[in-house]
Amino acid sequence: MRKVFYISDGTAITAEVLGHAVLSQFDTKFDQITIPFVETLEKAHEVACQINKSKSENDDEPLVFHSIVDEDIREVINQSNCMAHDFLNTFVAPLEKQLGLKAEPTLHRTHGIANKAYSARIDAINYSLDNDDGISLKNLDDAEIILVGVSRCGKTPSSLYLAMQFGIATANYPFISQDMDSLELPKELKQHKHKIFGLTIDPNRLHDIRSQRRANSQYSSLRQCRLEVKDVEMLYRKERIPFIDTTKHSVEEITAKIIEVTGHKRTMF
Amino acid sequence: MRKVFYISDGTAITAEVLGHAVLSQFDTKFDQITIPFVETLEKAHEVACQINKSKSENDDEPLVFHSIVDEDIREVINQSNCMAHDFLNTFVAPLEKQLGLKAEPTLHRTHGIANKAYSARIDAINYSLDNDDGISLKNLDDAEIILVGVSRCGKTPSSLYLAMQFGIATANYPFISQDMDSLELPKELKQHKHKIFGLTIDPNRLHDIRSQRRANSQYSSLRQCRLEVKDVEMLYRKERIPFIDTTKHSVEEITAKIIEVTGHKRTMF
Repeated sequence: MRKVFYISDGTAITAEVLGHAVLSQFDTKFDQITIPFVETLEKAHEVACQINKSKSENDDEPLVFHSIVDEDIREVINQSNCMAHDFLNTFVAPLEKQLGLKAEPTLHRTHGIANKAYSARIDAINYSLDNDDGISLKNLDDAEIILVGVSRCGKTPSSLYLAMQFGIATANYPFISQDMDSLELPKELKQHKHKIFGLTIDPNRLHDIRSQRRANSQYSSLRQCRLEVKDVEMLYRKERIPFIDTTKHSVEEITAKIIEVTGHKRTMF
Repeated sequence: MRKVFYISDGTAITAEVLGHAVLSQFDTKFDQITIPFVETLEKAHEVACQINKSKSENDDEPLVFHSIVDEDIREVINQSNCMAHDFLNTFVAPLEKQLGLKAEPTLHRTHGIANKAYSARIDAINYSLDNDDGISLKNLDDAEIILVGVSRCGKTPSSLYLAMQFGIATANYPFISQDMDSLELPKELKQHKHKIFGLTIDPNRLHDIRSQRRANSQYSSLRQCRLEVKDVEMLYRKERIPFIDTTKHSVEEITAKIIEVTGHKRTMF
């Protein structure tokens, strides 16, 4: 299997994300290794040795994807025995011309703590945890989005991802049988209707997920799952609540779609 | 302010993450807009109009960063009135030569649901939530990492990020005064010592964070924060628990460091 190295003088998350996106366009498997925090020339030489060793042990030249800010460290990696792809510099050099500005390489600016957005994001994570699963309906004034749906349809991972990736304070509320019997939103939610977004899910998938938690219960029975999903979708239509089906989508897709529909601004971190 | 568009036929998370990394090398501000799910030629033409409009309203040509899999859609965007940077294709074309393989463009492979890693990741998120804040010490057999530390030192966001980004099932446990009095690990933790990683924090920062939750309490007093941090670091040293200081680091940096020290494999998503 072809060896792939993701290397950075920071967390290497950027190198991983883009490298993975690029490699996913090829229908083959790779042996992937991530090496973050290559912050000294000494460490860079160690990594170069590791790359060269891998080349001598395999027929195929290793692929290297890196986003290294420091020029000297980058040079050491580029000169190792590999096919190096430089994410940052490939785009920074032409941008310098286009913007008429000189880049000012600064370490840890991408995933560092030194910006206001970072603390807003930690606040959003704390908010979403404190307002997970209908724990409290008192703080909904502070919610930017309120996700609703039946138990286990994907509300919690979606709430946390909205907070963590996009810094959006998200509460979530699981409908209980009382709400379903009356086909009404609880009154605490009604006054925040403009913030509400619904999730739904295929009843068969819901049955599978609930069975992992509580097998052979009424809660996980296919009959119960079908009933709840039917009722909840009826409620969404009646109340004109926008909703999406989570069955075939990842949290990234679900949350990107929610933000698109609700028109929230995605904040960059 | 220079306008920047992040565009994709998927979630646009890749375009955002990389674009942000590249632009953070320049010490200037940008007006950033993200447009995900550009999946049809019709939508692509709409977006091209939006870009052209922005050009006609501003002196500066807008910057476009895109990761569009579909060739026809990509072409429409590239031909709009902008400086386009193509994250995928810039690297895919040379890779085709290097790998001797033809790329097989597939939509939603990057942030889609169609891989085993995805459900492992959702399982890890659920595990981390169920085992947050010492809620349960019964399931520690299933933990891959157990984060420990005093209240409000960053355990919960770090646990969730380890689960969400890297798919690592992470429990966390806040030390209580009983543990500190005896300077001993609780016996439930002792048998999992090899999985334990400690967090610590500057007492002044801890005092600020706790004061936001409970101002003027003993809990948030600087004296109490100093005492707890001193004790917890003593315990880490005594028990030889690896630990890091979270004060000046983001969750990305903290978790990347934890994975580096513990030697866990980062799984790509």
